Amino acid sequence: MTNEELLGTTALNSWKLVIGRFDQNLAAISDEQLQKQVAPGKNRLFYLVGHLTAVHDRMLPMLGLGERLHPELDEVFITNPDRAVPDLVSASDLRKAWSEVNRKLTDAFERFTATEWLEKHTAVSDEDFAKDRTRNRLAVVMSRTNHVSFHSGQAVLAK
Amino acid sequence: MTNEELLGTTALNSWKLVIGRFDQNLAAISDEQLQKQVAPGKNRLFYLVGHLTAVHDRMLPMLGLGERLHPELDEVFITNPDRAVPDLVSASDLRKAWSEVNRKLTDAFERFTATEWLEKHTAVSDEDFAKDRTRNRLAVVMSRTNHVSFHSGQAVLAK
Repeated sequence: MTNEELLGTTALNSWKLVIGRFDQNLAAISDEQLQKQVAPGKNRLFYLVGHLTAVHDRMLPMLGLGERLHPELDEVFITNPDRAVPDLVSASDLRKAWSEVNRKLTDAFERFTATEWLEKHTAVSDEDFAKDRTRNRLAVVMSRTNHVSFHSGQAVLAK
Repeated sequence: MTNEELLGTTALNSWKLVIGRFDQNLAAISDEQLQKQVAPGKNRLFYLVGHLTAVHDRMLPMLGLGERLHPELDEVFITNPDRAVPDLVSASDLRKAWSEVNRKLTDAFERFTATEWLEKHTAVSDEDFAKDRTRNRLAVVMSRTNHVSFHSGQAVLAK
């Protein structure tokens, strides 16, 4: 493996590790427990899962991997804070969406060459990307990996 | 910049972004506020800062960057849970240690070539590393970056 391949694989492992841990924790939680808040007055686990699913779904067009699978989640889980609108999706559909979106992303990431990792994402202009080539797909995926970790730290408090 | 240099720089940016955000939040918190728990019965902010400082300090020998600066933090912030032993370090010394350790790490990371990012860390054997070359310095730094994000997610709940 060349250096650039190895760097890409190492970065991808970080994504897979963080998602895998979240999946494990989620599998150990019942649908009823998903209604628990991470701390008094804070987000429910249900909201965190929906929020992360919606944010990850947005990565599909952002990284040029196709259309969104679940744009309907934005209204409930991004635009609005927790409990502002009724839950429109069941726990089981939410679990399914979370897995489906991550599977599609991970499958694509596993096929990325180093050059593909370094392509620009669609939320940056050609002009800005020319000035700063670190605004690439890898930067987006690492940012989202940290975002999952951020909310994972909150989720474990509900245990 | 070559692909491998750009991949290394992109990964390093993720570390710097996460540490930078934590620094900003920490600067906005008084020493008194550091005594707040992130949720009832959970860790104090003070403990989280100490824990992260100790874990980062351990990266120095782990990544072959020299001796530890603050091995005395382990007893209070890694071996023991929060409030099990009295605080032996002042808030101002803790803030100083946090900055000092991260500065030393970041300075070293900024000089890493792609090949140096991909060197093995000292916690993996030669034999295991030969089988799995993703057990390298970059993997450690990305894991620690996610670890900071994990506790950052908890820290913001104390706001």
